[in-house]
Amino acid sequence: MDIPESHPRRLSLMTRNKLVDGVEKGITSKAGLIAHGRGEAFDYLLGEKTIPIAERAERAAVKAMLDADNPVISINGNVAALVPTDIIKLADRLSAKLEVNLFHRTDERISRIIEWLELHGGSDILGGKPDAKIPGLDHARGLCTEEGIFSADVVLVPLEDGDRAQALSKMEKTVITIDLNPLSRTANAADITIVDNIVRAVPNMLELEPSDAGFDNDHNISEVLRYISERLEGLA
Amino acid sequence: MDIPESHPRRLSLMTRNKLVDGVEKGITSKAGLIAHGRGEAFDYLLGEKTIPIAERAERAAVKAMLDADNPVISINGNVAALVPTDIIKLADRLSAKLEVNLFHRTDERISRIIEWLELHGGSDILGGKPDAKIPGLDHARGLCTEEGIFSADVVLVPLEDGDRAQALSKMEKTVITIDLNPLSRTANAADITIVDNIVRAVPNMLELEPSDAGFDNDHNISEVLRYISERLEGLA
Repeated sequence: MDIPESHPRRLSLMTRNKLVDGVEKGITSKAGLIAHGRGEAFDYLLGEKTIPIAERAERAAVKAMLDADNPVISINGNVAALVPTDIIKLADRLSAKLEVNLFHRTDERISRIIEWLELHGGSDILGGKPDAKIPGLDHARGLCTEEGIFSADVVLVPLEDGDRAQALSKMEKTVITIDLNPLSRTANAADITIVDNIVRAVPNMLELEPSDAGFDNDHNISEVLRYISERLEGLA
Repeated sequence: MDIPESHPRRLSLMTRNKLVDGVEKGITSKAGLIAHGRGEAFDYLLGEKTIPIAERAERAAVKAMLDADNPVISINGNVAALVPTDIIKLADRLSAKLEVNLFHRTDERISRIIEWLELHGGSDILGGKPDAKIPGLDHARGLCTEEGIFSADVVLVPLEDGDRAQALSKMEKTVITIDLNPLSRTANAADITIVDNIVRAVPNMLELEPSDAGFDNDHNISEVLRYISERLEGLA
């Protein structure tokens, strides 16, 4: 779909098209389109930019991943469709493993996502042959690899389901998420919650200096809520 | 698609699945999935419940439809997928006609939606043979029936596009919408804006007593924005 260079919502429309392409390629689920729409609304409320509160979380996330013994980045259909190249670069920067992990899991979609990431320069992508299970989740939802997510001490789970984020947290892992909804269970289960659009957050994390000085996740989420609240009050 | 009985967001996920099924049945468009996601985000902000401000608008809507000479309910792919039975019951309660009217119009999708509604007990569904046009819209977008939307004095257009809501308003119809986004052009073009999830609003409208005592739409929308703002402030 062509979008004029001058269109004021070009980035948003191009992002949307990447996901529709993702559905057509068998990478993204249809439920993923809905999840994306939800993110779009929160992004609008944020002003479609990385707010300083989010940048602080991004710095803390980079630091936690760099300090980890076995950092792993979990990839789902939306992540793969939206930032295939940058997420591979990020794994490289952070010496993290990549593991495909889907909410609506099918072996077919896992394979397609792995191929898609390989096409973008990825290698040794985990998830195709799960040999472990996250406790407390249904069988298909809990599948993961011993080498990757199961044994990870720090996991970056962008655009994650709340149940899985909570289950990973119960395993005493440090959970980092990227989620535009500051009220989601995922946002509140995580240790570091980046309330930002993944298409901005991942490129930011390729550049930002690591720092967790004074970082407090609950405080950070509260500040995001206050930021949106003040914007809406101004519009009422 | 199976969702564990125990999943705390089961209702929201089931609603989402109805739309995904709708796409597979050829009833709902892919753009409709993203639009639903945007609505979900605003529903989060409302606390996923019918707030008193919305109930007031629902009562006013029931009254306006009952008082109308030719009330019409417009159905699109998302409405058909989400509340097929209840929207038919509502048309019955309000002695309103039902007309299928799509943003991404194809004759195929119109036919499938009419069949789908008939399967749920509907009859005399308009929209399959448009013979009139809403002024000021592109040809395909403006198509409607003389008997239904074109001659209606009061129209309920749930989950409507902003351009069409404005065009109907310019025709001096009383426009009622159900839209979770209080900032949307549709919400602001309508005479009665119900800021509520359609899966709650339509069942409510089957039960509520009609009343428009002291109803003011602009005031109502501002109150919704303040409600969300305060709720976020309280959660911060």
